[in-house]
Amino acid sequence: MAGTSLVAESTRSRASRLDQLWSSIADAGRELLRRRLGPRRRAVELLCRELLSVRGEASTLALARELVETWRGMSAEERAAFLRLLAVEFGPDLGAVRRAAEAFVHQPGPRTLAELRRVGEAPRVELFRRMNTAPGGTRAIVELRAELLRAMADDPAFAELDRDLLALLATWFNPGFLTLTRIDWGSPAALLEKLKGYEKVHKLDSLEAFKRRLAADRRCFAFFHPVLPEEPLIFVQVALTRGLADRIGPLIDPNEPVAAPSEADSAIFYSISNCQDGLKGVTLGNFLIKLVVATIQADLPRISRFATLSPVPGFARWLSAELEAGTAPIVEAERELLERLGEPGWHLDGELTAALEPVLTGLCAWYLLRARRNGKPIDPVARFHLGNGARLERINWLADTSPKGLAESHGLMVNYAYDPARIEQNHELYVEGELVHARAVERLLAARERIVERTLPAVVQANAS
Amino acid sequence: MAGTSLVAESTRSRASRLDQLWSSIADAGRELLRRRLGPRRRAVELLCRELLSVRGEASTLALARELVETWRGMSAEERAAFLRLLAVEFGPDLGAVRRAAEAFVHQPGPRTLAELRRVGEAPRVELFRRMNTAPGGTRAIVELRAELLRAMADDPAFAELDRDLLALLATWFNPGFLTLTRIDWGSPAALLEKLKGYEKVHKLDSLEAFKRRLAADRRCFAFFHPVLPEEPLIFVQVALTRGLADRIGPLIDPNEPVAAPSEADSAIFYSISNCQDGLKGVTLGNFLIKLVVATIQADLPRISRFATLSPVPGFARWLSAELEAGTAPIVEAERELLERLGEPGWHLDGELTAALEPVLTGLCAWYLLRARRNGKPIDPVARFHLGNGARLERINWLADTSPKGLAESHGLMVNYAYDPARIEQNHELYVEGELVHARAVERLLAARERIVERTLPAVVQANAS
Amino acid sequence: MAGTSLVAESTRSRASRLDQLWSSIADAGRELLRRRLGPRRRAVELLCRELLSVRGEASTLALARELVETWRGMSAEERAAFLRLLAVEFGPDLGAVRRAAEAFVHQPGPRTLAELRRVGEAPRVELFRRMNTAPGGTRAIVELRAELLRAMADDPAFAELDRDLLALLATWFNPGFLTLTRIDWGSPAALLEKLKGYEKVHKLDSLEAFKRRLAADRRCFAFFHPVLPEEPLIFVQVALTRGLADRIGPLIDPNEPVAAPSEADSAIFYSISNCQDGLKGVTLGNFLIKLVVATIQADLPRISRFATLSPVPGFARWLSAELEAGTAPIVEAERELLERLGEPGWHLDGELTAALEPVLTGLCAWYLLRARRNGKPIDPVARFHLGNGARLERINWLADTSPKGLAESHGLMVNYAYDPARIEQNHELYVEGELVHARAVERLLAARERIVERTLPAVVQANAS
Amino acid sequence: MAGTSLVAESTRSRASRLDQLWSSIADAGRELLRRRLGPRRRAVELLCRELLSVRGEASTLALARELVETWRGMSAEERAAFLRLLAVEFGPDLGAVRRAAEAFVHQPGPRTLAELRRVGEAPRVELFRRMNTAPGGTRAIVELRAELLRAMADDPAFAELDRDLLALLATWFNPGFLTLTRIDWGSPAALLEKLKGYEKVHKLDSLEAFKRRLAADRRCFAFFHPVLPEEPLIFVQVALTRGLADRIGPLIDPNEPVAAPSEADSAIFYSISNCQDGLKGVTLGNFLIKLVVATIQADLPRISRFATLSPVPGFARWLSAELEAGTAPIVEAERELLERLGEPGWHLDGELTAALEPVLTGLCAWYLLRARRNGKPIDPVARFHLGNGARLERINWLADTSPKGLAESHGLMVNYAYDPARIEQNHELYVEGELVHARAVERLLAARERIVERTLPAVVQANAS
Repeated sequence: MAGTSLVAESTRSRASRLDQLWSSIADAGRELLRRRLGPRRRAVELLCRELLSVRGEASTLALARELVETWRGMSAEERAAFLRLLAVEFGPDLGAVRRAAEAFVHQPGPRTLAELRRVGEAPRVELFRRMNTAPGGTRAIVELRAELLRAMADDPAFAELDRDLLALLATWFNPGFLTLTRIDWGSPAALLEKLKGYEKVHKLDSLEAFKRRLAADRRCFAFFHPVLPEEPLIFVQVALTRGLADRIGPLIDPNEPVAAPSEADSAIFYSISNCQDGLKGVTLGNFLIKLVVATIQADLPRISRFATLSPVPGFARWLSAELEAGTAPIVEAERELLERLGEPGWHLDGELTAALEPVLTGLCAWYLLRARRNGKPIDPVARFHLGNGARLERINWLADTSPKGLAESHGLMVNYAYDPARIEQNHELYVEGELVHARAVERLLAARERIVERTLPAVVQANAS
Repeated sequence: MAGTSLVAESTRSRASRLDQLWSSIADAGRELLRRRLGPRRRAVELLCRELLSVRGEASTLALARELVETWRGMSAEERAAFLRLLAVEFGPDLGAVRRAAEAFVHQPGPRTLAELRRVGEAPRVELFRRMNTAPGGTRAIVELRAELLRAMADDPAFAELDRDLLALLATWFNPGFLTLTRIDWGSPAALLEKLKGYEKVHKLDSLEAFKRRLAADRRCFAFFHPVLPEEPLIFVQVALTRGLADRIGPLIDPNEPVAAPSEADSAIFYSISNCQDGLKGVTLGNFLIKLVVATIQADLPRISRFATLSPVPGFARWLSAELEAGTAPIVEAERELLERLGEPGWHLDGELTAALEPVLTGLCAWYLLRARRNGKPIDPVARFHLGNGARLERINWLADTSPKGLAESHGLMVNYAYDPARIEQNHELYVEGELVHARAVERLLAARERIVERTLPAVVQANAS
Repeated sequence: MAGTSLVAESTRSRASRLDQLWSSIADAGRELLRRRLGPRRRAVELLCRELLSVRGEASTLALARELVETWRGMSAEERAAFLRLLAVEFGPDLGAVRRAAEAFVHQPGPRTLAELRRVGEAPRVELFRRMNTAPGGTRAIVELRAELLRAMADDPAFAELDRDLLALLATWFNPGFLTLTRIDWGSPAALLEKLKGYEKVHKLDSLEAFKRRLAADRRCFAFFHPVLPEEPLIFVQVALTRGLADRIGPLIDPNEPVAAPSEADSAIFYSISNCQDGLKGVTLGNFLIKLVVATIQADLPRISRFATLSPVPGFARWLSAELEAGTAPIVEAERELLERLGEPGWHLDGELTAALEPVLTGLCAWYLLRARRNGKPIDPVARFHLGNGARLERINWLADTSPKGLAESHGLMVNYAYDPARIEQNHELYVEGELVHARAVERLLAARERIVERTLPAVVQANAS
Repeated sequence: MAGTSLVAESTRSRASRLDQLWSSIADAGRELLRRRLGPRRRAVELLCRELLSVRGEASTLALARELVETWRGMSAEERAAFLRLLAVEFGPDLGAVRRAAEAFVHQPGPRTLAELRRVGEAPRVELFRRMNTAPGGTRAIVELRAELLRAMADDPAFAELDRDLLALLATWFNPGFLTLTRIDWGSPAALLEKLKGYEKVHKLDSLEAFKRRLAADRRCFAFFHPVLPEEPLIFVQVALTRGLADRIGPLIDPNEPVAAPSEADSAIFYSISNCQDGLKGVTLGNFLIKLVVATIQADLPRISRFATLSPVPGFARWLSAELEAGTAPIVEAERELLERLGEPGWHLDGELTAALEPVLTGLCAWYLLRARRNGKPIDPVARFHLGNGARLERINWLADTSPKGLAESHGLMVNYAYDPARIEQNHELYVEGELVHARAVERLLAARERIVERTLPAVVQANAS
């Protein structure tokens, strides 16, 4: 970076040329803005400017309230235009940043650094801080980011705005400010209805179906922020079982008999769901899991094992791609067997499943431990839990035979174990590229390796790198 | 700043020379640190480094808790040493900032700006964010800043650390996250005891004395942050009166009869106290006043006037200095009269007070409106309320005859009026250098001007600039 | 009573003969008891005796707790036996009562009256008072009475026990001790599930269906007793409408659009349900209605009309009996028309309903106002609301075409209006035998009278008496 | 009773004569009433009659509210007159009771018994029940009884009314309806202020002094009724100590250092105060003590001993009377020593106290165990705790040297021990006339007996009977 600064063109002139480029992009944005937000645009922009002005200081509360209400009343199109306004007109003043950067380079010290940081922060950040003083301000800003993330698919120019929002929300939603709340059948129906809607992993048909998941042998916890007392941020569902659960069916069956929690030795985290799109990227899940582990330990000292029962969402897709590319770690004889996965109801055919089990569990171990990108597992769930300090504990055969479970992971599910004493060390190994896993999983992987090594050494090599 | 960059010495070499200077200061700090924190230093520093490390990510909660507990257990000397550690070892890497600044100057754009901002943030900021995840984390950080502010008097090198802390706390204690709580005699005794301790303006002898200030004709409100439910941040005491109160005595007399709130037409803010030293500089007072005005308006629609009854804490000191320097806006004949202010009990001598009243109230008007620094009133209370959009409404003679009142402001008190419809405009005028005041105050000032113009035009000129 | 005392047989001997009779009945009960409660009987009886004894005074809490737990663990048969034990063994000592009565007659005065009252109270009343000191005691006693009422159908000997329980429960559940709670979608799911089960009038399929009944244009209130915070005692569902609702359909349709409550001028009480069988006979409903009227008036001053939309549960049965007996107030020509009520789907035949409307609404008016027992309407709902001070406001045609509505009341429903200013007077007239009703209802009745007077004067006479 | 019925005069005529007598008393009361309550009397009486009438049924709530407000507005004299109205005009109809009694004697059975009970209940009982439906009704009735008890000193005719009120209040304030609340420094100041006022045993100077009694090594609990959430009914103060406390000084000294509760092995109940005069006679204290013992046991399992540190309020008075009467269980030689108790500061004279200790502690043991009325100790505190199942554990010398302590009990205090396992048995023995006490107390008593037996056998005989 700094090493490339000795270019022919003077820094100054080059920078100003780039500034012009940047400006012209912004100008285009403004034109677009004018067309979309129409007459309303001026009013909203003026409101924002006023809130940021000297005059605004005295009436932050009133102006912030007006801005929040304006946001609430906007149509989808107006909201999109407003986001563009924030992205284009309320970013940092690059000229000022450059001047401050030069001053710092010339004379590095506290004063120049402070100035550099001051101008480096986009004015919209202060705008959001002031907007937040209004009732419902926090909620509006979370919504605003949710809309931004939806819009971003169309337009990568919003990335800068998103970075500012994410940094601000991460600071505001610091885990130290959140409350962990136990959810049960005595919780408000309105809250349960919301959670039911947010549950994407193992969907709920009705509130009555939810009741079973809140019975004596279950635990459900959510994070809340004090200013959003009716909006759960993330929640986790836990089953108290004897032994690690190896199938999802009994855990989500509303008619399963309720077990005595005093007899349980394991806590199975079988569903964890984010609730607020606008908080994407704000780290909540790993804090939630760890706090819930600690809470259950304190409450039920007999529980000694903590593990998830998780889907392997990318497995079927990965396998199919590998098969197509001819790079799957199988021997030719297995290909025909795997093709039978396309037959409806294959999982009900005992003979077939007996033949498939060793092949698929081995392939799954391979997928989870060997299929990586930048050294990390490509499976998102594995990435989350292993990166979070869990251990890949067990691969469960015919564990989720729902249509989705069969389609995405050929019915397999995985236990990731959270051993409080090992979490830190596992995480550190993960950072260094090692995925901690149980001996049983190692055996599955080794068996697969032995099979393919004899026949497909090249593939193995390629894949393992 | 940037304008001074065309120096002979190359930016590069000069910067590196400054870096060395900076480094040597830091080294000195380290040496000091070593001596003071002793063997414990290594442990604390390691803990901080670990909390910031990759390994720390997995066990933020545990490490943060340990750090908070370590902080709590530290002696005063160890705390001072820890603050120094944070100031010296966890500041931004100036070399990295310079490189990022150069890269930005060379190629201004989102990526270089993001990098510049990333390295511009001191690592301790992330350290505080992680420390905050622990129970009691927020409180510890507020305490930490309180200690820092106490220590800063001795050592200006802490300013950078303070800037980071203030920015973080201002974001965390955004008014949108605070709750306004009414305090009354049904509030917890422990809370009332705390407030009694925080009340510095008109001290309270006992909880029983506090009771009168919480009776039916009073209101008391405090701001709280949800994670510090037992720690008020700031609180205000209000009396509901008929007409603007012109003396503090009846408002703080525990034996004053309780009036019917339904008969009141005015709300007098007679005491506002910050409770947390660690939040100095975080704007809370003006939000509190405005929210309380709105709350009382909604609750008691008959109340139409909102004003403070405030001390003039710098008046006596200012007058004494002006008299000594011979620049006081008085005529010679008044000097003798003013000297009698040194006589004990002067305020009880009816003849004397009758003679003093026009002189002192005029001088006070002069002091509040003319005695400025950078265009702002030098009186801190005037600066706060006028800057906050209030109007200087009335100067009250013999309004506070307590020893402190006599010593600091020769017994004068001021009403600053908060007219919700004018706040914004008043504030704007204030920014432009105009101090909005009532006609009665204008008359006091004009009378004084007429007196001194005849005799001391030079002084007036000098003072008014 | 006293006037019949001059019988030949001496009071003394006669009484002792009756005592023997009474005793032999009790003895039979005891024998039964012995057989049913078996070995456990002794234990339970001993526990009760101990709780009532001198020794019990010191450990009431422990013994009460044991008794409550014993009750909870009893099978249905054991409970029945326990009720018999209470009825037979813990009633008043009739010999003692007689002696006290004689003493009082001999020497009426405060002391003899006190003694008479002391022995007149069954020991089981004190037993219940002591049992109530245990956690869950109140609940157990309410359950005990519910079981008693179920058992009473079989055995009228329980009446005395029931009288004691009812008197005690009426004192304990005095409205002054109850809290009126608004129920909405933010109420605990467990509570809504219970209410859903208790709603007998217009059944609820699911919690989701309940949600519509708790929307912005609805109100739902329940009475609770502080020691039973999870057990609603009685609840009422109210719809806020423009004009008096004349059909139940829209009020219970989950898909009906939500109206703005600010536009409503009427509050329609469309369902009121008792929740605790054990509190039968404890007056709750009229207090609930009146408190809810007052609450809604305070909350929504625009609401000026309060009325029910009620079923006429006995109408079809009454009409059918009258028709069979030949005493229905109809003319012969109408009989054929009324027979068509037996045809399925009659209510969908416009021509038929047009012909039936005047006949059935007139008959309904007749039924509500003329069909009486002891001067009170035989329709239980009419008896409740008219006795409660309401006015029979309107009879609504084709108002409830559900199978139950058609079967019980030929689709008719009634508005009973609660005019706060008239309630007292209406009630007083009711006590004197007058059923207050609106002019429209009077017209329906008068029309019917005109029709039948011409042809069936005898019937009318007979019926009206 | 019944045995005396065969008198010459016929029951009938005699009864009617008594009725006349009774009536004339009532008439006199009425006259008095007329004079005192004056014109207002009619209004209040009418209101009561209306509330009890048929018409009142429909508007109980409104009339009850009016009656409660009328009560609140009454002057002391009007209240006294109102109590007389209730006593005289709303008692049972004695004629009706006599008729019902005769009917029952003639034909004892459920129906006649029910009628007897119905007319045996004074109409004012139903009046209170209806009055209770109003907001503040319960509080008004408790106040009403408090005023009645104050008035009763003057006029024993109120006894009947009091019996009705006590029975009703005992049913309403059944311990099963009360909540046990821990009081600490976080409790509302208004509540602490009330408790401070109710503390009669060891008075509190200020709220700040109360703080020490709510510190970590203390516990304070109160009973509340749900409808009187701001009115404590009774409260107890407990100190957690090592060993049984033998002096009150350290327990009530605001400057005593706070001990670690984890080190305590004993819980000392050093003050128990009733708060509501109107609930005199309603058993609350023994339930409170037992619940607090259970609560502390659950909370702090290391606490194994529960005892009071109680005054001996009647000791000095008893001793003085016995000395005067010459019946004190002393030998002549001791008389002179005891006379020195009249010297101020005697308790500071080491030689004197050494001589007095064996005499006074022995006399105190004698007083507590031997001085009885109806077989019960005459000391009220001993009667309460021993009757409650406690054991007289220890007599403490120089345990309360406050002026009151010296005056009432010559500085002695007593520990009554509550051993949860023995409470019931101790109580039973108490009922049988045995006062359970520790061996040490037995030794004190025996020593005294040996001394006096030799010289004053007659006195001992007389006293022990």
